[in-house]
Amino acid sequence: MTAQVEQVQADNESAGAASPAKREVGVTELALRDAHQSLMATRMALEDMVDACADIDAAGYWSVECWGGATYDSCIRFLNEDPWVRLRTFRELMPNSKLQMLLRGQNLLGYRHYEDTVVNKFVEKSAENGMDVYRTFDAVNDVRNVREAIKAVRRVGKHAQGTICYTESPLHTVQGYVDMAHELMELGCDSLCLKDMAALLRPQPAYDIVKAIKDSLGQDVRIHVHCHATTGVTLVSLMKAIEAGADVVDTAISSISMGPGHNPTESLVEMLHGTPYTTNLDDARLLKIKDHFAGIRPKYTEFMSAITGVETEIFKSQIPGGMISNMESQLRQQGAGDRLREVLEEVPRVREVAGFPPLVTPSSQIVGTQAVFNTLMGPYKVLTAEFADLMLGYYGATIGPRDAEIIAAAQAQTKKEPIDVRPADLLEPEWQKLCDEANALEGSDGTDEDVLTYAMFPGVAPKFFLERPEGPKNVGKDPAEVAAEKLAASAPGTGPVKGPINYSVTLDGRAHSVTVERA
Amino acid sequence: MTAQVEQVQADNESAGAASPAKREVGVTELALRDAHQSLMATRMALEDMVDACADIDAAGYWSVECWGGATYDSCIRFLNEDPWVRLRTFRELMPNSKLQMLLRGQNLLGYRHYEDTVVNKFVEKSAENGMDVYRTFDAVNDVRNVREAIKAVRRVGKHAQGTICYTESPLHTVQGYVDMAHELMELGCDSLCLKDMAALLRPQPAYDIVKAIKDSLGQDVRIHVHCHATTGVTLVSLMKAIEAGADVVDTAISSISMGPGHNPTESLVEMLHGTPYTTNLDDARLLKIKDHFAGIRPKYTEFMSAITGVETEIFKSQIPGGMISNMESQLRQQGAGDRLREVLEEVPRVREVAGFPPLVTPSSQIVGTQAVFNTLMGPYKVLTAEFADLMLGYYGATIGPRDAEIIAAAQAQTKKEPIDVRPADLLEPEWQKLCDEANALEGSDGTDEDVLTYAMFPGVAPKFFLERPEGPKNVGKDPAEVAAEKLAASAPGTGPVKGPINYSVTLDGRAHSVTVERA
Repeated sequence: MTAQVEQVQADNESAGAASPAKREVGVTELALRDAHQSLMATRMALEDMVDACADIDAAGYWSVECWGGATYDSCIRFLNEDPWVRLRTFRELMPNSKLQMLLRGQNLLGYRHYEDTVVNKFVEKSAENGMDVYRTFDAVNDVRNVREAIKAVRRVGKHAQGTICYTESPLHTVQGYVDMAHELMELGCDSLCLKDMAALLRPQPAYDIVKAIKDSLGQDVRIHVHCHATTGVTLVSLMKAIEAGADVVDTAISSISMGPGHNPTESLVEMLHGTPYTTNLDDARLLKIKDHFAGIRPKYTEFMSAITGVETEIFKSQIPGGMISNMESQLRQQGAGDRLREVLEEVPRVREVAGFPPLVTPSSQIVGTQAVFNTLMGPYKVLTAEFADLMLGYYGATIGPRDAEIIAAAQAQTKKEPIDVRPADLLEPEWQKLCDEANALEGSDGTDEDVLTYAMFPGVAPKFFLERPEGPKNVGKDPAEVAAEKLAASAPGTGPVKGPINYSVTLDGRAHSVTVERA
Repeated sequence: MTAQVEQVQADNESAGAASPAKREVGVTELALRDAHQSLMATRMALEDMVDACADIDAAGYWSVECWGGATYDSCIRFLNEDPWVRLRTFRELMPNSKLQMLLRGQNLLGYRHYEDTVVNKFVEKSAENGMDVYRTFDAVNDVRNVREAIKAVRRVGKHAQGTICYTESPLHTVQGYVDMAHELMELGCDSLCLKDMAALLRPQPAYDIVKAIKDSLGQDVRIHVHCHATTGVTLVSLMKAIEAGADVVDTAISSISMGPGHNPTESLVEMLHGTPYTTNLDDARLLKIKDHFAGIRPKYTEFMSAITGVETEIFKSQIPGGMISNMESQLRQQGAGDRLREVLEEVPRVREVAGFPPLVTPSSQIVGTQAVFNTLMGPYKVLTAEFADLMLGYYGATIGPRDAEIIAAAQAQTKKEPIDVRPADLLEPEWQKLCDEANALEGSDGTDEDVLTYAMFPGVAPKFFLERPEGPKNVGKDPAEVAAEKLAASAPGTGPVKGPINYSVTLDGRAHSVTVERA
């Protein structure tokens, strides 16, 4: 290096040394949960994750998200993997990390409300198995539906994070989010999450909401921000959220990022270069994690989301990226594959009728399916059972009033009364019944963990218990194998001939039995 | 809509009406030049662009980038398209738009310095044919190399944009960029461009440089910012540049954006929602432009960049995304496909030896190829002719001193003396000679446009002039055609049978040797 260069470099460094200390922004790595859920239909097997765990554990993340409803479901439905074994494996392989999960409040990891005893049991068992941070949300932002879970997490001494599902409507305002933040903090949350499941959180509202919450509740209130990348704009939103004081943001390592997934961890690191903020993440570890998943990703090509680029039209429908492909397949099954745009236009109307719920599991499925029904059969000619329940209050209170006419139709169709209490208040104690049913299943091992698996996925658990001894199935495929299969499928008979082929050949009017093989 | 919803919406709207006027940020659409140059090896045919022109013309862009060195080269080398016809077609189809080109200063659209008469001729003819805005840069940021081109643009009354190529080194400082901005504005530029060809411009320097230039030269100095998307971080940089006062930013419509290309136009629009800035672009037109190129893109799959995701390692090598694949192919040709990482580590060392030039055509190729040579043959055992010229000053002055030892080696190898004058000052008048040579070529039509084509691409022009009457070739392919070709290539024998095949055929129990061929 020349003397001139050395001098300038020395000047730069001493200037750097004199600058004030940077504020550390924490990072939650999503590679082990939401990244593969959003990009590859939640199919990644534990064995494709374990080799990255040491680097993830040492990279300096605030937490490692690694468990949730879809990963649990996929484990028992597709991978013949016990999700509790997965959790314990993470615990063992990442002893220095806070493990984080996404919890659907009173729904736990399932699709219905559970009675409070079950909620408490689930939190106790997951904490025992190694969970540290519980990001707890409710699909309609009804705080009553997360209260029991948050209290349970507090009781076992783990980190309770209350979640605000971000959405947009004429009724959603910054002040409304601040009010919800107050309610969540009053439940004793350790932190808050602003959760943007559909990449709708633009930079200015990201700034305004984080700033308003900090201004109103105090700078010490921890705020985490979770965004998807689908619309191409949310890394800017993370920057603005950080400027407004956000404490932790969520990203996924670059090789399994973007599209309907998340912003890349390394881009976040680079984004903060030269600013008053830093992640303090270890670049060399990030590179190793990136290389690991770059190698794994091609195995799951057949499960990859069809959306690969940036998609801004979802600002209108608000449908999370992962759901659009579900809708397309619903429509194709009905022979109406060409009516997606109509359905996407129907979604905001259904949302208004239902009181503007955010669209996140299960409200996204409920609203989306009703929009499909309305498009194919005429508006509200048929209500799904779930949509009727949503209209009648069985998922909780929505921000806006629900349409009286459709409530009446739901009442007529289901013979159920509308409610305005916390839905779980209507449930009878059910833990003993669940134990009895689960323990009666062949292959069930009598543990509370198995009871919880049965409780949350009663349709899938029996088969899983039965087949569990066969061990995990990795549905990822060697890319060469995929190419060969594709070839065989697209040109039947062009694969290697496995043996002689028999023909009946009629030659000059006379039938012969002919066997042909390559000489 | 319910009364409550209506009321809130009305409140929101009147709050919006009371807010101060937003500052309009101009947008340069890159779809017709840099987007397909960066994503699909510059192969897009004019016929695949024309149907989008009416919408582009009406969408409200500040300018439409549509011409440059690589598109010109590709036209005559691969597409048998006259680049001047392309320019005139754009002029006709987009009468309301400012057409913009990228001009390599004294290199024009070629790879060597031209004598001033040729520079003037090129600017005159391109202005006559419809060009409006000339973004003029020099690969080593030597302002003497853009002076003549900028004066020529001023003389024909068009928009002269002086360019600062953004790069990083121990010698590059915000003040240095401000000084360069001063020099460019003293030449009479109408605007400045901060050009980030490798996605290295992080948010903080984007803000600092734009702000410092405005503070130093006045708020009225127009600044345009051009970024690639490769590192995933530059939409944030555009946001910061806008906050610092940038007047125009460059984006590409989403369906041909991202990867080594650019940030999506629609994401920029959404990013500014709710901020004090707006693009005033027409959403409905953008959707139509997006749909157009979404339909075109699959035709060029075979030319698509191998880099599809986000790549942050280039912060170390600083190699523009498009170049990495070139290097890989250079290395593979030498049987050294596994040494890319070594080469990428060598690049910064070569850059330092050469006085820290930015890496952009042609300096990126010169430095990159020397790095390949150094890796394969040992450091500076062999110098390329171009690298020797760079070391000897024949590309202009670099920001840092060049390594004396390597200068001596370059002198010894080439028998040329080092220079410190403006390289073009050493050139003899050459226009008449170029005319004589061009007009002697079969198929040349005797126009100045043809002389310029010959001047800039003397190796390709003769064949192009000869074959021009055959008309444009579209190298894009129907995706079904591509799939069929791939299948045939990957499964020999499944395509049409080319010759006889031998079988052993057992007929009624007796084996025969049978040869089959198409009758």
